[in-house]
Amino acid sequence: MQIIKRISPARFLVIGFAFIILLGTALLMLPISTNEGVWLSPLDALFTATSAVCVTGLVVFDTANTFNVFGRTIIALLIQIGGLGISSVGVGFIILAGKKVTFRERKVVKEALNLDSMKGIVRIVKSVFLMTLLFEGIGAIINFFVFIKDYPPLKAVGVSVFHSISAFNNAGFDVFGNFSSLTGYQDNVLLNLNTSGLIIFGGLGFFVLMDIIEKRSFRRLTLHSKIVLFMTSLLIFSGMMLFKVTEKISWLGAFFQSVTTRTAGFNTYSISIDDFSKAGLFIIMVLMFIGASPGSTGGGIKTTTAFTLFKSAYSMSTNKHCMAFKRRIPNDIVMKAFVITFLSMSLIIFDTIIISIFEPHFTFNQILFEVISAFATVGLSTGITPELSAVSRVIIIITMFTGRLGPLTMASIWYNKPESNISYSEENITIG
Amino acid sequence: MQIIKRISPARFLVIGFAFIILLGTALLMLPISTNEGVWLSPLDALFTATSAVCVTGLVVFDTANTFNVFGRTIIALLIQIGGLGISSVGVGFIILAGKKVTFRERKVVKEALNLDSMKGIVRIVKSVFLMTLLFEGIGAIINFFVFIKDYPPLKAVGVSVFHSISAFNNAGFDVFGNFSSLTGYQDNVLLNLNTSGLIIFGGLGFFVLMDIIEKRSFRRLTLHSKIVLFMTSLLIFSGMMLFKVTEKISWLGAFFQSVTTRTAGFNTYSISIDDFSKAGLFIIMVLMFIGASPGSTGGGIKTTTAFTLFKSAYSMSTNKHCMAFKRRIPNDIVMKAFVITFLSMSLIIFDTIIISIFEPHFTFNQILFEVISAFATVGLSTGITPELSAVSRVIIIITMFTGRLGPLTMASIWYNKPESNISYSEENITIG
Ligand SMILES: [K+]
Ligand SMILES: [K+]
Repeated sequence: MQIIKRISPARFLVIGFAFIILLGTALLMLPISTNEGVWLSPLDALFTATSAVCVTGLVVFDTANTFNVFGRTIIALLIQIGGLGISSVGVGFIILAGKKVTFRERKVVKEALNLDSMKGIVRIVKSVFLMTLLFEGIGAIINFFVFIKDYPPLKAVGVSVFHSISAFNNAGFDVFGNFSSLTGYQDNVLLNLNTSGLIIFGGLGFFVLMDIIEKRSFRRLTLHSKIVLFMTSLLIFSGMMLFKVTEKISWLGAFFQSVTTRTAGFNTYSISIDDFSKAGLFIIMVLMFIGASPGSTGGGIKTTTAFTLFKSAYSMSTNKHCMAFKRRIPNDIVMKAFVITFLSMSLIIFDTIIISIFEPHFTFNQILFEVISAFATVGLSTGITPELSAVSRVIIIITMFTGRLGPLTMASIWYNKPESNISYSEENITIG
Repeated sequence: MQIIKRISPARFLVIGFAFIILLGTALLMLPISTNEGVWLSPLDALFTATSAVCVTGLVVFDTANTFNVFGRTIIALLIQIGGLGISSVGVGFIILAGKKVTFRERKVVKEALNLDSMKGIVRIVKSVFLMTLLFEGIGAIINFFVFIKDYPPLKAVGVSVFHSISAFNNAGFDVFGNFSSLTGYQDNVLLNLNTSGLIIFGGLGFFVLMDIIEKRSFRRLTLHSKIVLFMTSLLIFSGMMLFKVTEKISWLGAFFQSVTTRTAGFNTYSISIDDFSKAGLFIIMVLMFIGASPGSTGGGIKTTTAFTLFKSAYSMSTNKHCMAFKRRIPNDIVMKAFVITFLSMSLIIFDTIIISIFEPHFTFNQILFEVISAFATVGLSTGITPELSAVSRVIIIITMFTGRLGPLTMASIWYNKPESNISYSEENITIG
């Protein structure tokens, strides 16, 4: 137990996520999880479990064709645990059991949720659970009105709940069969809007949701919430306009594609994302890379990070402080934003080179797209996922995992030594 | 004159470079510059002049097939002026004329050469001229021993001088005809090594060369020189090993490709860079993006910038200061490195999306490659340059220009107002 206590919160999270993924892998490999005649290799099961826990939605097998109701329930649970975060789920169980949450556990939650302090962590975890239940409940009820037309009642309930969990947690898994995602409901306004709503609220992050519920006024919101709301609106709007310019797509389609692209990974446009134009595919890659907001179920470098990059580039070009909504963004935050972006880029570039060597038959574009989608836990694909070789699958698994936990968290787990006390003098170098 | 005095050094440089490019354009359009029966449109002439002054080497027409000796001399002069930098050339003329270099002129040179102070600027400019003459002279003599076998003596002298200027200035222009670059000399060890030497010395930057000549000991070099030498060796070696892994290429070919890729843009491998494997092409893109060293004739984000990115990502992951060779890299330098990289990335992404819309018949890969090559003033191409539409040509012209002057310099020219005195309080946001 002494060893466990000395593990850093970052390492604790990595181990916790890995444990849930391995548990999920074992469960999905059981014969009671899959449809008759289907057999899942350990690597395929690991891929599916990682994709679910990391709320990515990349699949090597179609979910509905492969898994029976039991298997789908496992996947929904993995998505829910992954979306809430392993630490929140853990603390939730402790609270449910009526036990006291220790200092150590609070510290892990603080790390996992990117919190500033450890104040009110129990209250926060309770709110997170309540909000999840509320959003997913309402989402499932609205879904039911759509799916009752296509499925028998009991099945419709299952599909509605699964789709609500998958949408709110930005997972992008679907149970419509044959890799079809939402293409069968391309023009269903109610389902498009309900799904979009779940994705957007899930992608804002719980602090922003709590902040809005508490303050009820934009001006009184924290700087963080203001930036998240500003960036989310801006990205949804710009994405929609860009897709409208580059693709032959309806306004509803362009809106939905813009919402889903940044992290959810559902698809109404066409079964193959390859049908997008070159410019459209590249816009998707950029939107995926930016992703959702911190403390949410979504991935990417995050909206606040992208905002900080733009703002600090602007402020350096104009020789000003890095400002936002009449507040200064601290220098160490700006630096963190750049380092996260750099680590993310480096990972994507490294992966793309390696996979390019192992998959000579796919285009560069398809591989880059797949890697960004995995990193940003989006789950859109040009269709190459099921055909990836074992090496590439392992790389995609590691990438989903790194993307979900954050590249900086992953980089920091390798190093635990305190800083040495030798101090060195500064010396300028020329840059650029 | 009062207006000219109030122009910022950055704007002065932009105007100076633009003026030389326009002058070059006019000269190249003259009938006395081109071979018989060839007519250059104003856009083609502008493209060629920009490519020469920005030492890029992307060409819409093959240089030897299009321009006669007079035209080639103009191109060589444009390369030399672009390589030395418009400000150094200006100050050089002032010194030659025996006049005094004013404070203002020193300030422009300081900005152009990225210097820390204005001390000894006249001495620096003199050394820059002397070193250029020395390297290019020796390079031309060695070239002559190679080309005398293939050309009549007078022609061989011309080819030798042109190739030496083009190599030392990392321009990548050639006069071998039919877009062949150095493919005809693939296995000529002397020419490969001589060209590599010129490229490497030209790409180190004049301060490093001066520093080495003065100190003659690695330990006593400035931090800047140490980083440049370390990164240059590391990048040449890693590039060579990577090409050896991904391509069917000789050791000499892999070495030359690694040297030439980061900024010179010569080619011995094959007329079409498209013959590289997907992984090889992507490695080329990464090497091009990193580029040469500051204050050199090369482009890209620069070796010191790349070093700083890696070091600061490592130091943040391990919770340490950003160190290099027992010195701390100042925070504002780290920030500048990230901002330059971000602006460069943003420009490349923006360009790629726009060109993708206008060039539906080229692959994503070819367009991204072309844009990075233009930005990093490399000049390698998958062969699409001559087929680009007018809009895309204009974008490539602007990109070469921005790449040569630096994205931060280009961004800062739009803004000249002093910082306002209102001070705002800091507020934390969550990142990543
Ligand atoms: K997803
Ligand atoms: K070049």
